[in-house]
Amino acid sequence: MAKIDIDEMIAPVVEYLPNRTSDEWVQAALEHQETILIDHATNELKAAQQAMTLMARNPLNMDIQNKMSRLAREELVHYEQVLKIIKKRGIKFRTMKASSYAFNMAQHIRPDNKGKLTDSLIIGSIIEARSCERFHKIAPSLDDELQKFYISLLKSESRHFKDYLTLAQKYSEEDIQPRVEFFLQCEDAFITQPDRLMRLHSGMPTTDLIAN
Amino acid sequence: MAKIDIDEMIAPVVEYLPNRTSDEWVQAALEHQETILIDHATNELKAAQQAMTLMARNPLNMDIQNKMSRLAREELVHYEQVLKIIKKRGIKFRTMKASSYAFNMAQHIRPDNKGKLTDSLIIGSIIEARSCERFHKIAPSLDDELQKFYISLLKSESRHFKDYLTLAQKYSEEDIQPRVEFFLQCEDAFITQPDRLMRLHSGMPTTDLIAN
Repeated sequence: MAKIDIDEMIAPVVEYLPNRTSDEWVQAALEHQETILIDHATNELKAAQQAMTLMARNPLNMDIQNKMSRLAREELVHYEQVLKIIKKRGIKFRTMKASSYAFNMAQHIRPDNKGKLTDSLIIGSIIEARSCERFHKIAPSLDDELQKFYISLLKSESRHFKDYLTLAQKYSEEDIQPRVEFFLQCEDAFITQPDRLMRLHSGMPTTDLIAN
Repeated sequence: MAKIDIDEMIAPVVEYLPNRTSDEWVQAALEHQETILIDHATNELKAAQQAMTLMARNPLNMDIQNKMSRLAREELVHYEQVLKIIKKRGIKFRTMKASSYAFNMAQHIRPDNKGKLTDSLIIGSIIEARSCERFHKIAPSLDDELQKFYISLLKSESRHFKDYLTLAQKYSEEDIQPRVEFFLQCEDAFITQPDRLMRLHSGMPTTDLIAN
């Protein structure tokens, strides 16, 4: 993919997010690539599950059905791709404690059906944007195979980010901007706070990191 | 698809199932094609959800992860295809009471982890086989578009049936045949009993059918 295409894809993502990932996180992630790969696989599966949860909760919204079904399929393809790399590298797949990143935002989801849909879609857009931003930031420091793989993901991650945001506005009767800003503030607070857990969406790495 | 290919695909499915679908069911299904289409869409989504449930329950079984991820993606493609036909025909999508077909078997799933996996996979094989058998049976009586679509599904349904059965044997320490026979008996009893609900997997249609 040409650098100019990548820059075009990443620009709205960076503009949307409240901050750039720190060099400290990149450095720690490079030292714990196995952990990042396993967490990445898990996150792709979770993204597919989350898309299907939105489908199950909104069975008569055909737009949600169609868009989330396609999104779930793409996330599953990425999941299979990460598993293939993990296997090829002889890394033993394991279950790991999840980062509180998504939960930290999800706990503020409004309980009513419409609020729940809007907030879930906004959170979806933030998670996709952050994944995209981090893949872009870490890619140049990785080996060829991972670099190519992460760059190949940018395209769909940046499209998913926009899809989520468009759907959020489409199915909200109010301007979603205040809710977007609220969740971006939550995200900012989480990403910039010290975090002992090393994960794809973890905060500022401490000196006593847990990578398992 | 050539008739000889279809016959080759359908033969093991028919051999596996305890009975053939009755002409009465076919007749009733032809009279309630909208209901069958909507129920079909819902079943494709459920099959994807069930595959992902198996993935979530067996996170360290990479074979299950890889096979079920691909299967879930195929079911989602079929789901999108049925939704497209439903939309094209101006049919209003609705949520409907589910048939007890799957529940009838699922209530006998053993509670321990290994038993649960084996039984769920066997039930998966039976559901796929029955779908395949019914699509094959009803296809010749349908319009060109639906006929082509249902025939196109036979290939993956018959493959999924085999995949489920192979996985069930692979991850069971005992011969699965007694459990297969037990669930086939449950299926036989359900399919041949009178059923007021008209669905893709319903029993023998009564004269006072409910199609909504």
